[in-house]
Amino acid sequence: MFDFSLSPALMDLKKRTAAFVREHVIPEERYLDEHTGFPQEKLKELRRKARAAGLFAPHVEEEWGGMGLSMREMSVVFEEAGHSLLGPLALNCSAPDEGNMHLLEMVATPEQKERYLRPLVNGEIRSCFAMTEPPPGAGTDPSLLHTTAVRRGSEWVINGDKWYITGAEGAAFAICMARTEDGQGQDSRQPRASMFLIDMDNPGFQIIREIPSLDANFVGGHCEIALRDCVVPEEAVLGAVGEGFKYAQVRLAPARLTHCMRWLGVAQRSLDIAAQYANTRESFGQQLGKHQMVAEMIADSATEIHASRLMIWHAAWVLDTGGNGKYETSMTKTYVAEVVNRVVDRSLQICGSHGVSMDLPLALFYRSARPFRIYDGPSEIHRTVIARQVLKAAAQAAQVEGFIPEGAAVSPKTSEPEHHGEGQ
Amino acid sequence: MFDFSLSPALMDLKKRTAAFVREHVIPEERYLDEHTGFPQEKLKELRRKARAAGLFAPHVEEEWGGMGLSMREMSVVFEEAGHSLLGPLALNCSAPDEGNMHLLEMVATPEQKERYLRPLVNGEIRSCFAMTEPPPGAGTDPSLLHTTAVRRGSEWVINGDKWYITGAEGAAFAICMARTEDGQGQDSRQPRASMFLIDMDNPGFQIIREIPSLDANFVGGHCEIALRDCVVPEEAVLGAVGEGFKYAQVRLAPARLTHCMRWLGVAQRSLDIAAQYANTRESFGQQLGKHQMVAEMIADSATEIHASRLMIWHAAWVLDTGGNGKYETSMTKTYVAEVVNRVVDRSLQICGSHGVSMDLPLALFYRSARPFRIYDGPSEIHRTVIARQVLKAAAQAAQVEGFIPEGAAVSPKTSEPEHHGEGQ
Amino acid sequence: MFDFSLSPALMDLKKRTAAFVREHVIPEERYLDEHTGFPQEKLKELRRKARAAGLFAPHVEEEWGGMGLSMREMSVVFEEAGHSLLGPLALNCSAPDEGNMHLLEMVATPEQKERYLRPLVNGEIRSCFAMTEPPPGAGTDPSLLHTTAVRRGSEWVINGDKWYITGAEGAAFAICMARTEDGQGQDSRQPRASMFLIDMDNPGFQIIREIPSLDANFVGGHCEIALRDCVVPEEAVLGAVGEGFKYAQVRLAPARLTHCMRWLGVAQRSLDIAAQYANTRESFGQQLGKHQMVAEMIADSATEIHASRLMIWHAAWVLDTGGNGKYETSMTKTYVAEVVNRVVDRSLQICGSHGVSMDLPLALFYRSARPFRIYDGPSEIHRTVIARQVLKAAAQAAQVEGFIPEGAAVSPKTSEPEHHGEGQ
Amino acid sequence: MFDFSLSPALMDLKKRTAAFVREHVIPEERYLDEHTGFPQEKLKELRRKARAAGLFAPHVEEEWGGMGLSMREMSVVFEEAGHSLLGPLALNCSAPDEGNMHLLEMVATPEQKERYLRPLVNGEIRSCFAMTEPPPGAGTDPSLLHTTAVRRGSEWVINGDKWYITGAEGAAFAICMARTEDGQGQDSRQPRASMFLIDMDNPGFQIIREIPSLDANFVGGHCEIALRDCVVPEEAVLGAVGEGFKYAQVRLAPARLTHCMRWLGVAQRSLDIAAQYANTRESFGQQLGKHQMVAEMIADSATEIHASRLMIWHAAWVLDTGGNGKYETSMTKTYVAEVVNRVVDRSLQICGSHGVSMDLPLALFYRSARPFRIYDGPSEIHRTVIARQVLKAAAQAAQVEGFIPEGAAVSPKTSEPEHHGEGQ
Repeated sequence: MFDFSLSPALMDLKKRTAAFVREHVIPEERYLDEHTGFPQEKLKELRRKARAAGLFAPHVEEEWGGMGLSMREMSVVFEEAGHSLLGPLALNCSAPDEGNMHLLEMVATPEQKERYLRPLVNGEIRSCFAMTEPPPGAGTDPSLLHTTAVRRGSEWVINGDKWYITGAEGAAFAICMARTEDGQGQDSRQPRASMFLIDMDNPGFQIIREIPSLDANFVGGHCEIALRDCVVPEEAVLGAVGEGFKYAQVRLAPARLTHCMRWLGVAQRSLDIAAQYANTRESFGQQLGKHQMVAEMIADSATEIHASRLMIWHAAWVLDTGGNGKYETSMTKTYVAEVVNRVVDRSLQICGSHGVSMDLPLALFYRSARPFRIYDGPSEIHRTVIARQVLKAAAQAAQVEGFIPEGAAVSPKTSEPEHHGEGQ
Repeated sequence: MFDFSLSPALMDLKKRTAAFVREHVIPEERYLDEHTGFPQEKLKELRRKARAAGLFAPHVEEEWGGMGLSMREMSVVFEEAGHSLLGPLALNCSAPDEGNMHLLEMVATPEQKERYLRPLVNGEIRSCFAMTEPPPGAGTDPSLLHTTAVRRGSEWVINGDKWYITGAEGAAFAICMARTEDGQGQDSRQPRASMFLIDMDNPGFQIIREIPSLDANFVGGHCEIALRDCVVPEEAVLGAVGEGFKYAQVRLAPARLTHCMRWLGVAQRSLDIAAQYANTRESFGQQLGKHQMVAEMIADSATEIHASRLMIWHAAWVLDTGGNGKYETSMTKTYVAEVVNRVVDRSLQICGSHGVSMDLPLALFYRSARPFRIYDGPSEIHRTVIARQVLKAAAQAAQVEGFIPEGAAVSPKTSEPEHHGEGQ
Repeated sequence: MFDFSLSPALMDLKKRTAAFVREHVIPEERYLDEHTGFPQEKLKELRRKARAAGLFAPHVEEEWGGMGLSMREMSVVFEEAGHSLLGPLALNCSAPDEGNMHLLEMVATPEQKERYLRPLVNGEIRSCFAMTEPPPGAGTDPSLLHTTAVRRGSEWVINGDKWYITGAEGAAFAICMARTEDGQGQDSRQPRASMFLIDMDNPGFQIIREIPSLDANFVGGHCEIALRDCVVPEEAVLGAVGEGFKYAQVRLAPARLTHCMRWLGVAQRSLDIAAQYANTRESFGQQLGKHQMVAEMIADSATEIHASRLMIWHAAWVLDTGGNGKYETSMTKTYVAEVVNRVVDRSLQICGSHGVSMDLPLALFYRSARPFRIYDGPSEIHRTVIARQVLKAAAQAAQVEGFIPEGAAVSPKTSEPEHHGEGQ
Repeated sequence: MFDFSLSPALMDLKKRTAAFVREHVIPEERYLDEHTGFPQEKLKELRRKARAAGLFAPHVEEEWGGMGLSMREMSVVFEEAGHSLLGPLALNCSAPDEGNMHLLEMVATPEQKERYLRPLVNGEIRSCFAMTEPPPGAGTDPSLLHTTAVRRGSEWVINGDKWYITGAEGAAFAICMARTEDGQGQDSRQPRASMFLIDMDNPGFQIIREIPSLDANFVGGHCEIALRDCVVPEEAVLGAVGEGFKYAQVRLAPARLTHCMRWLGVAQRSLDIAAQYANTRESFGQQLGKHQMVAEMIADSATEIHASRLMIWHAAWVLDTGGNGKYETSMTKTYVAEVVNRVVDRSLQICGSHGVSMDLPLALFYRSARPFRIYDGPSEIHRTVIARQVLKAAAQAAQVEGFIPEGAAVSPKTSEPEHHGEGQ
């Protein structure tokens, strides 16, 4: 029966994460520089502390050095970590490494895991995920994948262009998606694709530039990459040949949700800052928070954060109980991405010129949160996916029940949470 | 640990309710007339069927003839009932009777329960709740309560005006709020008030008129009432003298939530109708639902209904686990009321001129849902309450942790669901 | 050079219209009954007064008994008339008669004008415009026109179904659109169509029913109509055979704008009512209007009404100076329809339960304004039209200036008002 | 009579400005660096070209070297200049210099004009306006002005802190607002204040730092300033002692509008970029602009830009014809600031990852436009001002016409444009 309590253990973990972020991470934000990023040494020190506090790699199985949390437990811990843009970095659960670790755990061979996963979990190396391509290649529409991998003896030769590859600069390896001709696509809309593990020192894998970007990405930028006769051995294939799009889904649904969790922390902190500001400033003879237009912004932010958190928790439960969660994570991602942007916007507005200044972190949040409405599927795509699902369910209901002209009796409903994990 | 599954028993109850509404209630909607309402005989018949189906008075304890559901169970059943405006009437869980039954269960003496509660649960009589007054009396601001009850020997004499008293026409009794001078208000902003059970045939209790109204209220209208030397005996006092506002809270928090549950059913049905319509109509050479602007409306409605349902479930859990739920029900009521109106509006837009016509129920929903953003506290008041709570929590956090000028480290957060029912 | 002044004569006319509506029309609103409409005798009396006041048929040429106003002058007068739903009826400039008069003036033969236009201008008869059809016929997408007119000797035989024909009950004649096979459509998407003047007592023209509808239409309802071997003589053709869609445009662009003018009056009156209410009520120890959430609603309504008025004036100027105004009236209609609905909604919210009651006209406005976002082209269609125009202009600019990859230098802009009527 | 045409001369000027920006300014944007700004030499060269093209200092009287344009003419020229963030700099009509020139023209002595205005118009020096103070000083609420100027013999000694003073770094002089005790405030809410011309090399005027900020300000940053026994001579007083707030109004109403003009150019260019992008990219087998969710964003942006332009033109006409324009510029500023942010946001969304990257100017626009909703009065303050005006007018109307309980007959309306400049 549905229930919203946290287990005592999770409550404790939540509090410890919150305390760690408050005491150790947030004070280091002063070293974040929008031009030069965050010092490597500082990050190492933060990670050392996180590990000492038992708060490291929360999403990874214990055998690989992580905390082995479920999606639901991650919901709580990632949100707390997300109060600072440095928090997920400190806990080694930031994008894209976090999703890559998940993918490697699910798909990699034991050798690949030793070589790539272990040092990644340990925080010794970083990684990137090379899927997106510049137009006319694979962007929002993955079927446009242009990069090809061609077998040559026991090797593969990869050619193509990648774009907006986050964290590439300084990464040790990339997981790269390429079109492979080893089979016919079942889905006529999508080519067969495979994933390759490419060491970044491969001479055929060149970083062209860091793309200057609205968000300040502190670690490794968003890079443009050229693959030119990039040769990799057979062992570089991640999982089975031809299964690239399937693995991308394995990576994307949870990764979409962990993005939401981290960004929800940003939204909550933005609201906290605005509330504290509204408590301590006066204007027109009254505490700022007593002005109703300010109160309205605070109330709407609190309410939407609450709804966001519940949607994340629910989608995490769907994934934990074996659902694929495509529909739920699409709804959650779309909603949370827009909420985060609204909450940061309102908080910045409440803080006025202080909000605009970099003295508060809101201006940085404002820049950084905006792309979240675009990456991992722009809101427009997700809305199309959601509607298609609703319409399909309505069509099925109409078949089951006979057509009712007024459309009244459609049931069961698609959007009801209890349809998932019914066996639990 | 948080969980979103329904128990098998509740899942079964949900399905039975849905089937009952689909098979027995919705076909009767054709007898709903916006001018003359719904025929009494038809309603009696519906209630007979609901009782036969084991779906009657779901919110009332079994000893009084109900089903004894928890708030969480009600969340599911009331939503299903709410798919038709007639559904809650059929199940005898519509406002204002439902809230009055709850209040009587909590506060009434055994004699009062036998006299008022039992026939009310049985559906033999109806009731009303007489609190709101015309300006300058108690409306949004209850401290303006003008109606007075003065003790005269063993009787009370009540004088005042009431307004927008739903269901008064044809009710057997009213629960009436009046200012009593038997004590000093502890809260200087609010007068002492008491509740009285008044039989509607009391000559001092006169219905002036049914107020013509945007919503089509089928049973008993929204009435204007004059209390002129209305004499009631000592036994007419409901609960303790002077505790009226406390009891109003007892009634309001759950009643606010049950409103949300019922209206969510209206939203879901509106979306279902629109989806079915979009599946079966064509325009500009394409199925209507394939047009992205239509898809967008459907996706947003589905997402907001999902968020609404989770917020209702959460608030129900808070009440079930002993929280007072004031903050959560304020957030939920504000959010759901606005979602319901948006969903109905979008669904009507999708159905075009069919949406405007009364051939579909959307036009009736459109009229009927609008007042929900006003009654039970207009959105503006709830937003003020929500913001006050957020600001108070931020102030407390600042005290605990010391003032941090940038406002960064506010914690714990007010809006997190796990703060309630921690003992569970 | 652009200028926003009213001529002294127009200012005087505006004031006289406002005074007439305030003194003669609004007091009669009490006789409006949502079930039975407005008494015929009362309307006749109002029209007699309007004519006496020199305020009758403002849009019609003087030779036919009107005031001969330009679109810009109509902008001002129609808005004032629109303060009451009865105002345009009183001045004989309400839909659909107003648009029909315009069409007859432009297209009808002298005989047709004497027979139909003159009594229509005089207010002796009413008319309707029969274009819309039930699915799968012509609704949003006019190319789906199903009604046919077939020549038989010197007669035409018309067959088909019409739907949502406003004002049909009690009208003396209909202007009816039908597909005619006298030629090939130039535009492959649209069939050839012609317009016919049909007397309502034609036995082949049957009113099936008044469609119950969200809006309370006081005069003639929205009707469903069956044309069954409806025979009309050659002289019943309005204009040239095969030019029906062209004439529909002649009727629609100005009719779209006059709708906006009248509805803007409703928006302005709604704001006026809310402002006066906010000035005279108190809650929580303060005048209602001093509460910032109320102030915000008032400010946004005033601002959006201001923007709407300017857009209407501008589009009227485009039409007055010879532009076809398709792009401008699409923008204006979409924007104004949404503004009117928002303004009425906010005003109703400000007035709380008074807003919901029919004691104020807001509840009636709320119901009546909603269809305006659907008829005359739903917002979704207009948005598509607007975007297509912007995209086309951008493509042309790119051709002229050469393709600039960053898309920076697109010019001239489509949306700039000065492109129209440059010759003036 | 109202009219929306541009004079041939203005149309020509518009085209020349557009061509200049397209051919000379936009190509230089590549030298804009978000970290180091725009090279001085490049700016000098641009200004030389603008002067040669007869497009320099459009807002200044010809006797001082400007083009002597009216507000209406400025509406058109400033918008065109605003297509690039460098455009107003090139034409020497960017904030804060533009507003300072206006103020000096209106208030300065001949000597002050020669010393400060002439080189400012010539582009030889820059200036700043030092009014805003850090809390608890004058920010949104100017009555909190803390900086004081005390007379000492023939000198004034100024002390206080200023904050967010745009363009201070590298400016030649500041216009500084300080509280002066030479008289009693007439308005009890506002202190007496005066304006002082302070050379930036005055040792008592110290720039503490450039405040890191969300927007990338290319010239002179947003600075924090300390005035410590800053001594200025009697001749440094600008205008009359004690009239500072009056002069601030002289500066603010037009300056508010010129901000809108320039930012509207940014909005228009953002839409142009998005439209061109939507014309040239494909996704899911269709041109991007054919996807309705994209079309919707384009249509709404075009419509809101259109409304914004009309509001700016109208407010310019009010100022040109002698109105004080407080109400109109408040509405316009609030509306346009929000439109610009929405349009940039939508355009960025349409361009996807290209929008996020700095390869297009949208990301820079996104950061730079956000503060416009805060400076020159945050939207919340303007909404309060607008509502107050509407409520006041409603109260006056009620007095004139007698109180009508239903609030129906309020007239004349506050928000109607024709009330201004009636004498014209």
